[in-house]
Formats: sequence, C-alpha cells, structure tokens
Amino acid sequence: MADPRFFRRAGPFDLSALARIAGAQLAPGADPSISITDVAPLATAGPGDIGFLDNRRYIATLAESRARACILAPELADRAPAGMALLLTATPYKGYALVAQAFYPEPSAPAARHPTAVVDAAASIGPETSIGPGAVIGPRVEIGRACRIGANAVIGEGVVIGDETEVGANVYLGYCVIGRRCRLHAGVCIGNRGFGFAMEPDGSVDVPQLGRVLVEDDVEVGANSTIDRGAGPDTVVGAGSKIDNLVQIGHNVRLGRGCVLVSQSGIAGSTKLEDYVAVAAQAGVAGHLTIGRGARLSAKSGVMRDVAPGKTVGGIPAMPLKEFFRLCAIWRRQVKAKGKRDV
Amino acid sequence: MADPRFFRRAGPFDLSALARIAGAQLAPGADPSISITDVAPLATAGPGDIGFLDNRRYIATLAESRARACILAPELADRAPAGMALLLTATPYKGYALVAQAFYPEPSAPAARHPTAVVDAAASIGPETSIGPGAVIGPRVEIGRACRIGANAVIGEGVVIGDETEVGANVYLGYCVIGRRCRLHAGVCIGNRGFGFAMEPDGSVDVPQLGRVLVEDDVEVGANSTIDRGAGPDTVVGAGSKIDNLVQIGHNVRLGRGCVLVSQSGIAGSTKLEDYVAVAAQAGVAGHLTIGRGARLSAKSGVMRDVAPGKTVGGIPAMPLKEFFRLCAIWRRQVKAKGKRDV
Amino acid sequence: MADPRFFRRAGPFDLSALARIAGAQLAPGADPSISITDVAPLATAGPGDIGFLDNRRYIATLAESRARACILAPELADRAPAGMALLLTATPYKGYALVAQAFYPEPSAPAARHPTAVVDAAASIGPETSIGPGAVIGPRVEIGRACRIGANAVIGEGVVIGDETEVGANVYLGYCVIGRRCRLHAGVCIGNRGFGFAMEPDGSVDVPQLGRVLVEDDVEVGANSTIDRGAGPDTVVGAGSKIDNLVQIGHNVRLGRGCVLVSQSGIAGSTKLEDYVAVAAQAGVAGHLTIGRGARLSAKSGVMRDVAPGKTVGGIPAMPLKEFFRLCAIWRRQVKAKGKRDV
Repeated sequence: MADPRFFRRAGPFDLSALARIAGAQLAPGADPSISITDVAPLATAGPGDIGFLDNRRYIATLAESRARACILAPELADRAPAGMALLLTATPYKGYALVAQAFYPEPSAPAARHPTAVVDAAASIGPETSIGPGAVIGPRVEIGRACRIGANAVIGEGVVIGDETEVGANVYLGYCVIGRRCRLHAGVCIGNRGFGFAMEPDGSVDVPQLGRVLVEDDVEVGANSTIDRGAGPDTVVGAGSKIDNLVQIGHNVRLGRGCVLVSQSGIAGSTKLEDYVAVAAQAGVAGHLTIGRGARLSAKSGVMRDVAPGKTVGGIPAMPLKEFFRLCAIWRRQVKAKGKRDV
Repeated sequence: MADPRFFRRAGPFDLSALARIAGAQLAPGADPSISITDVAPLATAGPGDIGFLDNRRYIATLAESRARACILAPELADRAPAGMALLLTATPYKGYALVAQAFYPEPSAPAARHPTAVVDAAASIGPETSIGPGAVIGPRVEIGRACRIGANAVIGEGVVIGDETEVGANVYLGYCVIGRRCRLHAGVCIGNRGFGFAMEPDGSVDVPQLGRVLVEDDVEVGANSTIDRGAGPDTVVGAGSKIDNLVQIGHNVRLGRGCVLVSQSGIAGSTKLEDYVAVAAQAGVAGHLTIGRGARLSAKSGVMRDVAPGKTVGGIPAMPLKEFFRLCAIWRRQVKAKGKRDV
Repeated sequence: MADPRFFRRAGPFDLSALARIAGAQLAPGADPSISITDVAPLATAGPGDIGFLDNRRYIATLAESRARACILAPELADRAPAGMALLLTATPYKGYALVAQAFYPEPSAPAARHPTAVVDAAASIGPETSIGPGAVIGPRVEIGRACRIGANAVIGEGVVIGDETEVGANVYLGYCVIGRRCRLHAGVCIGNRGFGFAMEPDGSVDVPQLGRVLVEDDVEVGANSTIDRGAGPDTVVGAGSKIDNLVQIGHNVRLGRGCVLVSQSGIAGSTKLEDYVAVAAQAGVAGHLTIGRGARLSAKSGVMRDVAPGKTVGGIPAMPLKEFFRLCAIWRRQVKAKGKRDV
C-alpha cells in the first residue's frame, strides 16, 4: 500500500463499484461484492488489492500475482491465474488511473494564507485558495478559486492564474496568464525574457521581449522546466498539454492542444507544434518550424525541418523513423563487416 | 501592443527620432515627422506601428503588412508595400532592438529593501539597490549600486555583485564574484561544488572544490542554468557572454568574451572556450578541451576534440560541419538504396 | 590559495603528516619535516604548496611546477623536477582529496533555527541541525542530527532526512526518505509526481503517483536535478551514488550503489541501473531497461536496450563502444571518399 506518511487512502470499494469507476466489464464468474481495499502493482499486490496490466512486457508477472483483481484488456484475460477477478476494458491504464484516483483522492489544502506569505495589497485572490509560507504575490496578480500556491513560489506583477490551478514550491511566474486546473511543479520558471539579442561585432544589444506566456487549461509542467515569454508574439501552451521535467520552450513557440513533451526535450524559438504532437525525451526541435498534428519525435532526435502531420521521425538530423531504423540496420552491417576485415 | 498588465510603453516617437535611435537611414520619400506609437511584429502591426524584417523567411509577411514603418536592410527595400516608411540599415535586428528599448525602457524598481528580506548585518548593500521579499543575503556579501535582487533569492556568504546587476527570483549564488550589468534569471544556481570526487573500489572521496565562479560584466544567464565553482582554479564566464536556460557549465571551465550558449547545452570540466564561441542548443563539449575563438558548435553536436578558431562543427562525434552535411547526404543515399532493395 | 572570502584554511602540516593523511609513501630523499601551508594546482603552486598529478595530459605542467611537494603515482616520479618532495601512491587523486579535506575541513554551521524559518509544530528536528532563513518544514517531517537545511528550502509533509545530510538553498523535497550524509545541492527537486497519465483520444487521465523516492546514504544530487516519485513502486537511489547537475530520474527508476550520473543525463521510468553504473553527460536511457553492474554509458549515448554488466556502450542508438568507434571510422572514410569524388 502507499506509504501513509504521504498518502491518505479512501475505500474500500466493492468490485462492481470499481468496474463502474474504471468503465470496465466484470468478467464472468467474478463476484461483484468482493471488497477491494487498495491498488497495488501486480508484483507486490496482496489478496485485498487490485492491479492492472497494460504492457505485455509484464505478462509473466500477471501469472504469478496474488492480486485479488486485475484491470486488463479482454484478449489477455486467459493469461490471468485462476481465481483472480478480472475487470475487462480496452483502456486498462485509464481504468487503473480512475480506480487509483478513487482510492487516493487529491488532498484538499485548507484555504489558508500563511502569515509569512507576502501578498501585495493590489492582488486579487479567489476563495478557497491557499497560499503557502514565504510565497510572494506581486501587484495586480489575479488568482482564481481553489488554487494552491506552494511555499516560496514567486508570482510577478500582473500574472493571472485560473481556478483550481496548483503552483509548486519555488516556482517563478512572470508575464504570463495561466489557465484553470493547471499543475506547475516545483522549480518551474515561466515568463523569463526570451534569448533575444542582436549580436554584432561590437557587442550584443538586448531585444526587449514584449510578449507573454499563455498557458491554457489543464496543462502540466514538470519540475525545473522553463518557458520563455514571447519576443512580441506570445508563447502559447495549448490546453491539456503535458510537459515533463527539465524541458525548455523558447520564445514565441506555440504548442497546440494535448501535446506531450518528455523530459529534457527542447523547442527552439518561433516553432509551432500543432495539436497532439509527442516529443520524446532529449529530443530537440530547431526554430521557425512547423510540426504537424499528431507527429511524433523520437527520443534524442534532432528535428531540423518541418514534420508533416501524423509522421514519426527519429535520428540526428531527424528523418522518417522507418528510414532511421533502416539506417541503423545499415550501420550494424557495416560495423560487422569491418569487424571481420579487421580480424 | 504589448500587454499593459506587464509592460509600460513610452513614446510616441517621430520617424526621424527612431531613425536616429536605430542608427538607420530614412528611405527617400518617407516623412520624418510621422508619429509612431509602438513596435509590433509585421504580421500584426497596425497603422501606428513600426516593425522589422531580419529573416528572409518572413518576406511574404512584409508584403502584406499594415505596419506604418519598417526597419530593414536596403537590399530588401523594394519588397515593402507602397506607402510603408522604411528605415534602412545593415543591422535591422539591432535597429529594432534599440527602437524597442526606447518604447519599452526597463522599469526601475524602487530602491527598497523588503521587510521580509534577511540581510546579514555584515553585508554591504549599495545605494539604489532593491531587495525583494524573502531574499536572503549572507554575511560579508557585497552588492553594488542599483542592483535588483529578486524575491526568495539566496546569496551566500562572501559573494560580490557588481553595479546594476539583476538577480532573479529563487536564484542561488555562492562562492562567486558577479560583474556589473549582469542578468541572472530565475532559478539560476551559481557556485555549487563541482562534480569532483575520487572514485575508488571502496567508495568515493569528495575532492574539496576550492575555486570560485567569476562572472564578468554584462553576462546573461538563463533560467535554471547551473555553473559550478572551480576545483582549485576558478570557473570563469567572460564579459558579454549570453547563456540560455538549463545550460550546464562544469568546474574550471573558462568562457571567453561574448560566448553564446544556447539552451540545454553543456560544457564539461576544465574546458576552455575562447572569445565569441557559439554553442547551439543541446550541444555538449567534453572536458579538458580548447574551443578556438569564434568557433561554432552546431545543435546537438558532441565535441570530443579541440576545435580550431573560426571552425564550425556538427555531429556526434563532432566533425567539420561540411563533412557532417556530406555524411548526412551519404546516409540519405544509403537509406534510399536499401529501401529499393527491400521492396 | 583558496579565496579567504569563501574558504577557511587549516594547517600547516608537515610532509609526514600529509603522507599519512594521503595514504602515500614519502619518496626517498624527501624531508618529512617540511612544512606545507596549502594545496594548489601544479600550474600555480608556490614553494609552500602541495599539488597532485593524476592526468598524464598535465605532465608538462609537473616539470615546470614550483610546488614544494606533489602527490603522484610512483611510475611518474622521475618526471618531477629536482627538489620537489614526492608523495607516492597508486591513487593520487584520492590522496589529494584527503589532503585537501585536511586543509579545508567542511565548516560546521551553528545549530540555529533562523527565526524566519517556518517549522511545523508536528515536525521533529534533531540536535545540532541548522535551519536557514525562510526554510519551510512541513507537518510530521523528521530531520536527523547535525543536518543543514538551506535558506528557502521547502520540505513537504512527512519527509524523513537522515543524520548529517545537507539540503541546499531553494531545494524542494516531498514524498521521500533521504539517507544520512547526503548532499542535495541548490534547486534540487525530489518527489514530484511522475509523468504518469493515460493518454486517450478524449484527453488524458492522471495516474496517481503513489510511490516515494528513497535516497540511500551518502548520495550527492547536483543543482537543479529532478527525481520523480514512483507510480506505485518507489524510485530508489542507491547508497553512495553521485548525481550531477540538471539530471532527470523518472518514476520507478532504481539506481544501485555507487552509480555516477553526469550532467544532463536522463533515466526514463522503471529502468534499473545495477551497482556502479556510470552514465556520462547528456546520455539517455529508455524506460523499462536493465543496465548491468559496472556498465558505462558514453556521453550523449541513447540507450534503447538492456546493457550487460561491465559493458561500455556509445552512440545513438547505443552499441558496444568498440563498434561505435568502428562506425565512426567508417563514417570518416566515407566522408573523405565522397569529398574526393566531389572535387
């Protein structure tokens, strides 16, 4: 079970309730009144627990699991041990997510403003919003309802934050408008001046960065990630986008809805990602490009040109992923051949 | 126009004043008394605005722009729409930067020390310097004139900061001497102990890191970047260098004057970059190397050897950029050939 | 000598004492009663200083050094200038580390709790522990003996910290148990929710991240690095591991004992590194892999498959390092050949 130092558990729930929560079908023979007390990984689950199977890599674990119940895809039902109650769904990971949310609802912070927080008299703070110790809220900031502002976070003049948004510890926000239900993890920096200067032989001249960062609703930004404000246009992060830790987003970048940027990836200035683009870990995208809707950029790829919608690319410089795999096969053959010659 | 929540505009200025500010020539036929009220991107500029064109990629935007005036190179003057007043200069981006600075001068913070700041009695703070809420200034720190220290920044014992330097929110500074007119963005960490230890089979022994970080005048360091202090020698960042977000600079590294390090690049310990070296995004340089004056390291390159002055390299491992382009062409041909064989 | 603004020196020590401290043999002819006042790099050392030589790259510096004494390997003794006293050991870097620790012992902070620190009434703080200005210690936190908690650090509810651990400025800790004698540098974020969500066409569903981060004894984590908490299992960092700046460790990752992760490397979720794995700068490891004991991952490598114990890999995708070097040689030949054809 989750460590009670950190997590408060709800429940128990019976199987029929969990099936409803998960949007799953109870498999024939499973007793809907069985009481489940917790979620757990299949490998460590005990007789009161429900687990899930989403990755075929772990099928062997399923067979040996002592979990009382499991959420999984119908086609894998026959791989489960006898006696395990099964919740069948085409989206088992989503089903597990919903069940786990039921067991471990997000704790609600009391709507307190800590006495050590520094809130400017000209800031507006919504009801049910909590402000942690040492947080600094600047002039004319507007924070919505039921937000949580973490300890020692710094929110600069004029920033707007929508309802139910969570700002982590030590976050810096400036020159930005943040949507509703966003989650900005510890150490995030949003709104610093973009990397804009005119480099001349006699020294560089700073170019004022006059845009903002617009973060739409339901965006998550991982720890210590950085998003620069626009140079004139705004930098935009589309609704529902998920940004992992240590990601860099340059000035004027526009992310569409539902983009996913995995850890340590970076998007250079003025590039546009259309909706639902996925950028894997440590990938980089050059400036002034357009990455089409639903495109996927593989881990560590270096994208130097536009990518058409729906395409998957890999490699440095990035090429269609199939071609990159072909190139890898060519390399393997060349290396083997040279190895033989060298003997 | 820039969002007035965040930016205060000066002006208007007439064209002749802007030409003087930009160091540009007014093109024949332009009325020097035209009043300009704002800067704006060409794509969104209106009839009171001045824009600029620096990148040929955006020539089509020029033709359709409603901007009243534009700063651009003389050879592109004939691509502008009729009636647009033109300011001609060989350095249009610099010209725009200067004009934008005139419209949006840096706001000056009041020289206040916030009552929640913790300033050691043995620290020395210059006149006109502001210290934000929750900032912590250690013993024997010396801060010059007209500096701005951000909220919740932490400045360790003995650190020296020159005049007119700006330290962002949540910055950590230790074991360092910072020059004048520097700008250290939110979350920057300067002066942590370098990654130095003697690794032996029976465990590692920490090597005391006895050097400092010397940051010369007019340096910019981007959000959440890290610069370790020297192991014995100092780590040095030369005057006028520009460091983007999430950049890592290891112990004993020496950057010359005017170096540019783009986001997520990293320089390993004891490497020297001579003056005006440019390191593109996500590039990495191994330790104990010398990168010659004016060399350019392409995005994502992995530099394993010294680079001669003025050279441009790319690839992993890095090679002269022309050779890397040749290699990419070879790869493309090999992939196409294999693709045909596979059909 | 180290800048007295930042460092307090002990000593002097005579050579026989330093030999004992370094675990080294005094070379024949060296006077054991010589008094040494400081450590210094060979290049700048003066007549009262002791230096060391560990990297053959710097042999020329040895010959010209004015250091009074030097720690080095016996086989290099004849490269030293006449009159330099030599301390001979097979591990000169470790020897230097120990001697430097003697000259520059870690300063001990007074066991004070700064009045601006916010310590929850239900937190437990051990004796001799100092808590810096603005630090925030949550409910039921347990901090051991002789710890140092930096200014403006934020330690969330329930976190446990072992004896003699140092937490830097602006660190965030949540959902974690930290061992003894750890050193967490400024800006580190440990325990944020992992990047876990079920992505469906109709939007993503957050997967509660119910695990912790367990950081064992004697671990160092560099500035602005991030370690996510587990999704159900814990994220684990084994004893004695050294993590550099800007490193990312995903949820459920398990690092064994004595692992070394150099700057800007990243380990994706659920991957296991066995003991003593070394990950060089900017390398990345995909999720759900096992990297065997003592394996070495070269700088910038992209590891897509398991790596057997003791192996060294390089390249993207990673392959045995010998094969990668072979491939680099092939590339060089192809480029030269094409260059000739193109002439």
